[in-house]
Amino acid sequence: MNDNKKKVIEIIAVGSEFLTPHYQDTNSLYLASRLNELGLKVSFKSIVGDDRLSLLSCFTHALKRADMIFVIGGLGPTADDITREIYSEALGTDLEFIPGLLKNIKNRFDRRGLDMASSNKKQAFVIQGAQILENKIGTAPGLWIDDPRAISVLLPGPPMELKTMFDAEVFPKLEKYKTGFQVHKILKMVGITESRTESLISDLYPEFEHVDLSLLAYPGQIEIHITSHSVISVDQAKSQIQPQMESLTKRLDKYIFSQCGEELEEVIGKLLIKNKKTLSVAESCTGGFLGHRITNVPGSSQYFLQGIQAYSNKAKIQLLGVDKNELLEHGAVSDEVARLMAEGTRNISGADFGLAVTGIAGPGGGTKEKPVGLVFTSLSWDNGFKVEKNQFLGDRSTVKTRSTQKAMDMLRRHLLFKEAVPDRS
Amino acid sequence: MNDNKKKVIEIIAVGSEFLTPHYQDTNSLYLASRLNELGLKVSFKSIVGDDRLSLLSCFTHALKRADMIFVIGGLGPTADDITREIYSEALGTDLEFIPGLLKNIKNRFDRRGLDMASSNKKQAFVIQGAQILENKIGTAPGLWIDDPRAISVLLPGPPMELKTMFDAEVFPKLEKYKTGFQVHKILKMVGITESRTESLISDLYPEFEHVDLSLLAYPGQIEIHITSHSVISVDQAKSQIQPQMESLTKRLDKYIFSQCGEELEEVIGKLLIKNKKTLSVAESCTGGFLGHRITNVPGSSQYFLQGIQAYSNKAKIQLLGVDKNELLEHGAVSDEVARLMAEGTRNISGADFGLAVTGIAGPGGGTKEKPVGLVFTSLSWDNGFKVEKNQFLGDRSTVKTRSTQKAMDMLRRHLLFKEAVPDRS
Repeated sequence: MNDNKKKVIEIIAVGSEFLTPHYQDTNSLYLASRLNELGLKVSFKSIVGDDRLSLLSCFTHALKRADMIFVIGGLGPTADDITREIYSEALGTDLEFIPGLLKNIKNRFDRRGLDMASSNKKQAFVIQGAQILENKIGTAPGLWIDDPRAISVLLPGPPMELKTMFDAEVFPKLEKYKTGFQVHKILKMVGITESRTESLISDLYPEFEHVDLSLLAYPGQIEIHITSHSVISVDQAKSQIQPQMESLTKRLDKYIFSQCGEELEEVIGKLLIKNKKTLSVAESCTGGFLGHRITNVPGSSQYFLQGIQAYSNKAKIQLLGVDKNELLEHGAVSDEVARLMAEGTRNISGADFGLAVTGIAGPGGGTKEKPVGLVFTSLSWDNGFKVEKNQFLGDRSTVKTRSTQKAMDMLRRHLLFKEAVPDRS
Repeated sequence: MNDNKKKVIEIIAVGSEFLTPHYQDTNSLYLASRLNELGLKVSFKSIVGDDRLSLLSCFTHALKRADMIFVIGGLGPTADDITREIYSEALGTDLEFIPGLLKNIKNRFDRRGLDMASSNKKQAFVIQGAQILENKIGTAPGLWIDDPRAISVLLPGPPMELKTMFDAEVFPKLEKYKTGFQVHKILKMVGITESRTESLISDLYPEFEHVDLSLLAYPGQIEIHITSHSVISVDQAKSQIQPQMESLTKRLDKYIFSQCGEELEEVIGKLLIKNKKTLSVAESCTGGFLGHRITNVPGSSQYFLQGIQAYSNKAKIQLLGVDKNELLEHGAVSDEVARLMAEGTRNISGADFGLAVTGIAGPGGGTKEKPVGLVFTSLSWDNGFKVEKNQFLGDRSTVKTRSTQKAMDMLRRHLLFKEAVPDRS
């Protein structure tokens, strides 16, 4: 394979489930993202079922038109996992049994005190001449085949196995095929809608001729993805993107919580550590999702003390010390109860901040006065508090997500600005 | 094209954006779902950018291997919309200008009081011999080409235009190719690994000649998807799948928690309602994820009383009444503390069941004695308790997911069987 010409890259996702209405390949998005970092662009994606003739048609065609082929899936132990066999057939080579591989696979089972099923034996067969790519978190080894027709990389389908193997074993080998330099920036925002973002920046679009820009909307979060390419140097790619980033951050300013891919929970985690503050939460309608997100961050035990999912009124009174009369007077979904929940969890835990959510996630439970999507979020600190009334749109899961975004954003804004920023969401 | 033989169907999604990490074709899921209604199955999906050579490679290959080809996108007015031209080239035919089409397109603009851009003129060119498919909500007409090689259907990319055109213009034409009827079943399992599942059922595979079966593995969950096709009737499709479903459920029995697509949290919700029981949880390493999943189910407030995310030791003692000496003696990640947490949340809330998780989700915090992935799960009820020691593999998020699966499965097994089922995960 010629190292200098532009590479035609094909990703093939194997699995009959991806041809049904119920499943979609997402691994190829991860591969595309990592390949783009090296200036490598994907030309074709193919999705094919687990049958011999279809696989052979795809593999043979890919070997004709592509210089680099990534095949994902079908390396497992079951009878419908036939990627190895058919790829070997497409290449015109044979499979070879590697005793050391079988030993590794068996060791994985032994460490967990389990018996290895005999079906796992097939995972110790590899395509002749292939380099074996270690699978640190599963039994299926990957394969790297360097052939005059193409570089072929066979990867396991489970996303965590794929990502871990790609990062550790494949990406380093690909660096020599790097064709250019790409700088990719993501501005993540909270407290603003897509159309508001668009109206704040659309007059800047004519300036964006040397970069790719796309606006993506998620529940409670807007992202701007900006990519700059250069064949010369990473510095050139950076200098192309710099003025655009400056214009955007100036316009969108305090809505931006991250410029380097971090999630909101990571941002508030870092702010809490920086300010040497601790946090506890109290949740009603989010039912633990706020605590879950906060504790998704490794090391969150440094600042996260506790959370209370006070779903029932009894729990609100008993665990959070919410006043029974206030609860009866205003109802569980009210600004008063949100405040009392935030203060309650803060007082009980001794944390610096208490963050609380109470609302109606739906689809049931709404009334005319308190419709589905009505959510109160509250932040409590040593000498003050804040409560916000939100009317979120969307299904149960969307309302839960928007609620956690809003609650975390209240803490972010307090820690960063100590003052209100107009909410545009 | 022979109307009776089994059709090879390919869907081609055109658009460079679908080759980036940021966008994904979803139109093909809709097509697959409608085609499946007619007993037609998709064999290949291809995703390709808007450049001439790539399109030609895809179209030519599809015309060789497929009997029915659905091409989505690239019919718009802009310079990168070249599907019509390149498909015509692949077929070896010419484009033909249809004055009436141009008039229709112009009328659409007139009705909205807009000028038609000159670029829209190209939308009035069609492939010779093609039938025109009316676009009721956009300017791009679709095309239906019946050719000895294949039936080719060119459809617009915007999802609403695609769906409207497919339903009104394409689906009726496809009914004559209806090959039969389809029944789709999903068995979801917990407490068992993929390879163990395989070893329990692989000798049944020869019986599965009339159905499609695929095995999917997720953290803490294995799914078997079974599809049955019949050329005669939906009853026949059902009766074909029945013996297979019986064999599988007999073998996999108590590991199966759902046969109709339900999640584990929905299943335990229904069991709690049926048994008129209530639940509260106590979480350490899952940090709220268990409560989040349980409260993802609409109506969960009927049985879910509270959750306590006792991340710190202080919270375990103060909120859950875990004995300080036990905590110091055994450590927070221990079977004793798991049991005390489960009993604590049950006693405090007055719930019938207490479910607790304590462990080391990683990546930090592991020791030789208590490595990352060590998780204790415990269930407490009025006159008993159960604790399980688990050693989970995977990253932080996977360990959290596996922990919630295991905890919920303990409750499921208790409610259903009141006895232990051997855990094969």
